Amino acid sequence: MKYAYELKMKVRDYECDLEGIVNNANYQHYMEHTRHEFLLSAGISFAEMTAQDIVSVVARITIAYKTPLRSRDEFLSCLNIKQEGIRYVFHQDIYRLSDMKLAARGTVDVVCLVHGKLSRCLDLEKYLEPYYQEK
Amino acid sequence: MKYAYELKMKVRDYECDLEGIVNNANYQHYMEHTRHEFLLSAGISFAEMTAQDIVSVVARITIAYKTPLRSRDEFLSCLNIKQEGIRYVFHQDIYRLSDMKLAARGTVDVVCLVHGKLSRCLDLEKYLEPYYQEK
Amino acid sequence: MKYAYELKMKVRDYECDLEGIVNNANYQHYMEHTRHEFLLSAGISFAEMTAQDIVSVVARITIAYKTPLRSRDEFLSCLNIKQEGIRYVFHQDIYRLSDMKLAARGTVDVVCLVHGKLSRCLDLEKYLEPYYQEK
Amino acid sequence: MKYAYELKMKVRDYECDLEGIVNNANYQHYMEHTRHEFLLSAGISFAEMTAQDIVSVVARITIAYKTPLRSRDEFLSCLNIKQEGIRYVFHQDIYRLSDMKLAARGTVDVVCLVHGKLSRCLDLEKYLEPYYQEK
Repeated sequence: MKYAYELKMKVRDYECDLEGIVNNANYQHYMEHTRHEFLLSAGISFAEMTAQDIVSVVARITIAYKTPLRSRDEFLSCLNIKQEGIRYVFHQDIYRLSDMKLAARGTVDVVCLVHGKLSRCLDLEKYLEPYYQEK
Repeated sequence: MKYAYELKMKVRDYECDLEGIVNNANYQHYMEHTRHEFLLSAGISFAEMTAQDIVSVVARITIAYKTPLRSRDEFLSCLNIKQEGIRYVFHQDIYRLSDMKLAARGTVDVVCLVHGKLSRCLDLEKYLEPYYQEK
Repeated sequence: MKYAYELKMKVRDYECDLEGIVNNANYQHYMEHTRHEFLLSAGISFAEMTAQDIVSVVARITIAYKTPLRSRDEFLSCLNIKQEGIRYVFHQDIYRLSDMKLAARGTVDVVCLVHGKLSRCLDLEKYLEPYYQEK
Repeated sequence: MKYAYELKMKVRDYECDLEGIVNNANYQHYMEHTRHEFLLSAGISFAEMTAQDIVSVVARITIAYKTPLRSRDEFLSCLNIKQEGIRYVFHQDIYRLSDMKLAARGTVDVVCLVHGKLSRCLDLEKYLEPYYQEK
């Protein structure tokens, strides 16, 4: 599969819980960090957006947990993006690097509020194609 | 709406991010804590399960974010549960306490592994009814 | 020992790590939350301070870890405060509730920046005495 | 200054709080991750230690906060180690990469419990010298 953006990361021990595996909420952190790094690479800073009263809001997130990541695992956090009306839909996959097994698959709907109003404010056209293929 | 379990909680400032609202991943923490407190109230300890090599695994989570919680907000974290084959499906709603506005709505699919094998091991029959009404 | 403020809390499972005990950094979260709740009880809101460009800065923290807290433990997070020049020094103790064993003892030096300048801005006189006894 | 180990890291936005700066507790996470990566580089795995009932315990931590890290900041997390009787003392410095300004300076006392007994179990001799110079 082809992605618009890929980020190599590594599990930190404090992200693991009692069961010895990465706590589920941390995948959301991984995915958020990947989106923000992707936006930065596209010239869009989350912190600057916040300072300009442009708020990006996650409206909905779905994560399917496939293979638990553990202490010391490296992983590849990948994303594609498509636009659906006012929403940006991020398709985010996390692969364990050692065997490229799918660890988690997420779909994240993001909307932007400019001074409190829904707006299509991100200039992401060039990232929308040709990466994302409709199912 | 009637819930099988309700837990009153309060936002902690470190759970808020740059935008001044609770970071999305923390709702997953709130929901996890609520499930574990519910299970404890039903006589089931997550830590003891882990010690006995019974692993409860979140297979899938969906969260719709409705109204952002902020610093100092108190909220009510509620859940219902139903059984679908081998899966326990938790329906989890978080309400801002001041006006009972829905802050987040989640659906969490949990499966249990006993010594690595999928198993219907939780004794939750009495909590399944009459709380959860099929849509 | 007598404290200016006490807050009852409970360990959340996601705060525990691989070793089955609360991760060390979380005691800092507990202590921060306790300070902010104390300040709120004294009529001082951390979020409002931030909005007014009053920034409270932790300049130094020391934590001695005594007895590890575990899943399901309830604990009492207590604090005293004294003023040393421009600094507010919080003395923070965390006790496991079941046996009132000391879990962690912290000393936290806080300074305030009003529009970027160091300032003695918190009205905490009445909390300084008679609680804190010099050693 | 010369360090036994250095790790380049980058602030993740979810680590920042209301004030727009990295939350204080996260420096403890950064330092923990750096220690564990250092130990791994020395052939010692925290997760394997835990599995073998060797528990490394942070007995005391002191952190002086110097310059707050912000969204997008890259930083260098460095450490030296010395042995004091049964304790390993980690001296940990975090520098903002853009200008090598000191962001935080920590001292972390670690002891090891082998099957519950204090023990000098880590083979770290070669890292103790010549890096750490007594004050």
